[in-house]
Amino acid sequence: MGPHPAVAAIRLAVRRVLHDVLTDVQRSSENDPPPPAHEHAPQPLVLVACSGGADSMALASALAFEAPKLGIRAGGVTVDHGLQPGSDLRAAEVLVRLGALGLEPVESVAVRVGREGGPEAAARDARYAALDAAAERHAAAAVLLGHTRDDQAETVLLGLARGSGIRSLSGMAATSGVAGRYRRPFLHIDRQTARKACMVQSLPVWDDPHNADPAYTRSRLRHEGLPALEKALGKGVVEALARTARLSRDDADALDTWAAQAEATVRDAAGVLECAKLYALPPAVRRRIVRKAVIEAGAPAGSLFARHIEEVDRLITGWRGQGAINLPGKVVAQRQGGRLVIRQG
Amino acid sequence: MGPHPAVAAIRLAVRRVLHDVLTDVQRSSENDPPPPAHEHAPQPLVLVACSGGADSMALASALAFEAPKLGIRAGGVTVDHGLQPGSDLRAAEVLVRLGALGLEPVESVAVRVGREGGPEAAARDARYAALDAAAERHAAAAVLLGHTRDDQAETVLLGLARGSGIRSLSGMAATSGVAGRYRRPFLHIDRQTARKACMVQSLPVWDDPHNADPAYTRSRLRHEGLPALEKALGKGVVEALARTARLSRDDADALDTWAAQAEATVRDAAGVLECAKLYALPPAVRRRIVRKAVIEAGAPAGSLFARHIEEVDRLITGWRGQGAINLPGKVVAQRQGGRLVIRQG
Repeated sequence: MGPHPAVAAIRLAVRRVLHDVLTDVQRSSENDPPPPAHEHAPQPLVLVACSGGADSMALASALAFEAPKLGIRAGGVTVDHGLQPGSDLRAAEVLVRLGALGLEPVESVAVRVGREGGPEAAARDARYAALDAAAERHAAAAVLLGHTRDDQAETVLLGLARGSGIRSLSGMAATSGVAGRYRRPFLHIDRQTARKACMVQSLPVWDDPHNADPAYTRSRLRHEGLPALEKALGKGVVEALARTARLSRDDADALDTWAAQAEATVRDAAGVLECAKLYALPPAVRRRIVRKAVIEAGAPAGSLFARHIEEVDRLITGWRGQGAINLPGKVVAQRQGGRLVIRQG
Repeated sequence: MGPHPAVAAIRLAVRRVLHDVLTDVQRSSENDPPPPAHEHAPQPLVLVACSGGADSMALASALAFEAPKLGIRAGGVTVDHGLQPGSDLRAAEVLVRLGALGLEPVESVAVRVGREGGPEAAARDARYAALDAAAERHAAAAVLLGHTRDDQAETVLLGLARGSGIRSLSGMAATSGVAGRYRRPFLHIDRQTARKACMVQSLPVWDDPHNADPAYTRSRLRHEGLPALEKALGKGVVEALARTARLSRDDADALDTWAAQAEATVRDAAGVLECAKLYALPPAVRRRIVRKAVIEAGAPAGSLFARHIEEVDRLITGWRGQGAINLPGKVVAQRQGGRLVIRQG
């Protein structure tokens, strides 16, 4: 008798990603000198980032099962955000659980969460910095993250609420970070499957109280927004959102490529943008070029909204002698003699 | 003292659209022979499609106010869907109200709603067919539709639930139909403003019971889904969704243009798609070419989902000797000697 379907599903998802990691490791080592004959090539290490919650515990269990079969060492990292009393004890407990699964090395990293960008963004920044450092320290070939299809759906809705275009609808990438370090094997797996896989494997899981705290946007979305949307639109919403993420990501990538190619053709000899040439481009391509130019002039990307770009775009498409436009980061855009001049004031 | 801000807002929105309509009329008549000296050029006619609800009554009132100032005749059409007892009486009442606003001609058109595509789609198809016919009959320069920013937000969410990519996120166009016949002046106006404008002008409005009927997806979205999303994500959601529609529409248009240009370069001398050349394109462009080819081979666009295109795409990107792929409309896609052959079986 094979494993429970939920366990089979999470293992398959992890196996596929480990295959990809191995392929990448082999490709990147093709140019390395061969090891001396009496030495084996060292086994690559893959780490799992584990909070102790159901998603990442399921991921850790699947990694522990699949990695040895592929000649991969499996390790784990847990991040102690220090946001709740006793978080250090919990981190120690997660280490014990990861060790019990057979992971080695396992490590707990304490971080200091700042305030920049709000509590969720600050915690995320601190977490990734710690994971990056751990990956470097252990020379890990990859770090697996337990984000599920439900997380992806929530991320798409959060992006939708920004209303800043399809890049913000593209959610989380299956592969991201320096040299594709981060991998998300569960983006096609729903949260329920991960939870079930823990249950049937008798893995204790920890429910982060933040996940149910209505002070957090994502938590409100999870417990109220998304269920209401499912009630109105049907059970397929989560899958549709995850598919929207994949399609939007490809579309955004293609348009970025187009904009990068077109950019070289719309600058004059001195490198200044020419309005007539910009005007001839499709609006989607033109706005991407404008946005990139504004960011390169010093505007912080996070403070730059669609309405800013629309206003600059009107210097090109609706010219009636407007004055200079003030943008975030003290960047100023103005039209001068048929040129679009963008610089920090 | 000027008009109430809500009335000012709806009038401004209509005035802008009427200016565009006039510009288009003048442009298209430039090649016509001039009228005999003793005749005036006939005034163009703009119709409003009016259900008697707050949105379209507000639109009718603004059209009645603005049109004469621009030398435009204002008329109205109401469609009797025949779906509720007494709908003919209500249509007659709407005509009276439109006449009272000074619209002329006004007309009620009874339609028979079929069943194809579900009740909402069938009613919509019947309605647009009737509006098209009325526009032709009266030689109208444009037909104004009362869709608001809230309708647009709902349309984006309905598209999101399909998960079929950014075209379905692009909502309703400000201008659509044959020769840009349909205009939607209120896509930037919220429903509350339209209702307020009716109230302060003492215009009686009719609340369609369908709009509150939870049997309809759009109604559930309006009364449960969207409010829950606003509660989770903040009040800006409707505006963000409407902005997403605009940005997605531009992006989808640009990618369609790219795909149309690229398509000519990926066919061999016999016009068959070459897999190696398709492979070299960005996925977003490649999938659009594949989708178009499958539809041209006879697959109904409405039955063709993202997963179908993904499966055909794997013949190009993940070739391992797969067999022929069956698609809607008895269309079959297969790889033969490095070519992608798509035809009706």
